[in-house]
Amino acid sequence: MEYLFAQVGVAVFAISGVLSAARQRLDIFSIVVVGLLTAIGGGTLRDLILNVPVFWLQDLTAFWVALGASFAAFAGVRLILKLPLRLLSYLDAMGVALFAIQAIDKTLAFGYPAAVAVVMGLVTSIAGGIIRDVVTHRPTLLLSRELYATPIVLGGILYVVLLQFMVSPLSRLVAMGVMFGIRAIAIRWQLFLPLRLTLKIDLDDDQQR
Amino acid sequence: MEYLFAQVGVAVFAISGVLSAARQRLDIFSIVVVGLLTAIGGGTLRDLILNVPVFWLQDLTAFWVALGASFAAFAGVRLILKLPLRLLSYLDAMGVALFAIQAIDKTLAFGYPAAVAVVMGLVTSIAGGIIRDVVTHRPTLLLSRELYATPIVLGGILYVVLLQFMVSPLSRLVAMGVMFGIRAIAIRWQLFLPLRLTLKIDLDDDQQR
Amino acid sequence: MEYLFAQVGVAVFAISGVLSAARQRLDIFSIVVVGLLTAIGGGTLRDLILNVPVFWLQDLTAFWVALGASFAAFAGVRLILKLPLRLLSYLDAMGVALFAIQAIDKTLAFGYPAAVAVVMGLVTSIAGGIIRDVVTHRPTLLLSRELYATPIVLGGILYVVLLQFMVSPLSRLVAMGVMFGIRAIAIRWQLFLPLRLTLKIDLDDDQQR
Repeated sequence: MEYLFAQVGVAVFAISGVLSAARQRLDIFSIVVVGLLTAIGGGTLRDLILNVPVFWLQDLTAFWVALGASFAAFAGVRLILKLPLRLLSYLDAMGVALFAIQAIDKTLAFGYPAAVAVVMGLVTSIAGGIIRDVVTHRPTLLLSRELYATPIVLGGILYVVLLQFMVSPLSRLVAMGVMFGIRAIAIRWQLFLPLRLTLKIDLDDDQQR
Repeated sequence: MEYLFAQVGVAVFAISGVLSAARQRLDIFSIVVVGLLTAIGGGTLRDLILNVPVFWLQDLTAFWVALGASFAAFAGVRLILKLPLRLLSYLDAMGVALFAIQAIDKTLAFGYPAAVAVVMGLVTSIAGGIIRDVVTHRPTLLLSRELYATPIVLGGILYVVLLQFMVSPLSRLVAMGVMFGIRAIAIRWQLFLPLRLTLKIDLDDDQQR
Repeated sequence: MEYLFAQVGVAVFAISGVLSAARQRLDIFSIVVVGLLTAIGGGTLRDLILNVPVFWLQDLTAFWVALGASFAAFAGVRLILKLPLRLLSYLDAMGVALFAIQAIDKTLAFGYPAAVAVVMGLVTSIAGGIIRDVVTHRPTLLLSRELYATPIVLGGILYVVLLQFMVSPLSRLVAMGVMFGIRAIAIRWQLFLPLRLTLKIDLDDDQQR
């Protein structure tokens, strides 16, 4: 079940990569490369940092799912664009929550402290999207005012706390619910963090560095 | 022979990095850093993902070649710019083909399946150029309509198929010929993939994510 | 003492990341992520390339310092902006020098030759800043005409040469002094390398690749 969900997450990320790349007229292979990078980039970075074998070299399923989803998204882009506007955002939010929880589990399994696990959850779930934005030369998702990192951090902290008190499957369900829930609410009602939890400064270049 | 070709590939990549960086007025050390990143970035990423020692730490030749070529390109930029317009493109195409085949060989040698090898061939041969474009803040080569990834993917697939039937040196020659040939034809006659193998969508930002 | 300085370097880098991110209105978690990436990105890349455990997974101090400094910079941004204009630049120059020397020591300790150590010193000390610029979608520090890479390269070469003749602590002091000194002079009097050590070419896109 969880394994299946993870593959759905990979597929959703691949689709989001394809849609992002297709803003410019690109050929099919360039588009598929962006889809792949988006889908497996985050997990790859996580495994490099943890110094463990890269997950998609261990089990090729995720690789094939990412590849298939990228080609399918290319072929079926008209269908995808007919879906209700926010559906992809919700799927993305679900994928992000899944990736984060899995990364936390994996990091804890290697004996790292809870704080590291929360960070690796965040890294895993946003790195693919950041790589997608960088290679398609767009402002990265970190620069959007959307609540993107916030629900992952809050849900991740909640998860490692819950693990002290509850059995793992239940904790996982609650934490993923919180991650998905906060983001879904933010998507639905276009919510942001209150202004006082944001920052914007004006600097000329000399001051800046 | 192959070893020599590989060093030529490294040198060509370093020069392309220097030319890319020199679009802004930069000092010599910044330019050489971009040259180095372009030349050895792709192979470095390949080795990190395969979890094997990074190639230029094992054998410093590639490192010195990249460094020397970067300085030489800085010093001799006037000469380089006098070369026939497309010569550098052809050299780059040759370097890309070499890098891809070497990466496929290396990946297969570590026991990974053919599909992974083809992907690592692609990663190795384009990552250096993508890093170059990212650090010089330009649209990455993935965003160009040029046939860049396509010949590598097709040649890579051909190579792993041929390896089943032919001895390695011959397969290598044929595959590299195909990789170089497709790209050379595309450069010479400015060809792209047929429109139906490309994709461009218009999304406003809300739909996009 | 050195350990303490290293943490100061981490904190300074985190602050520079926060200030860079805060040019757009971002929420607190996105800003802290950029602070973290800037502070520990360079050392992470060094350890990945050297194939040794990532430093902040070994000793969480740097991680907590980076996290704390990022939150503190968010909270105290008004105070920071009241500091004398160039103070942050000087602190950054100090952090860079520290990171470079530490990376050289670490690389030499693993038995790599001096040339590799100098490169790793450069990689470690500038990668965090480059990652910061990439994720905040700005021209990277490599594209600035400021003397950024130059003092690190010169100081690094000096350091590995001095190590042949002098005891390590003294060499370290001299090399760091040179790194910091060149950059401080450049900041103070806005110096650049002489024009003939820079390069700028004009190419149209066809010639370029």
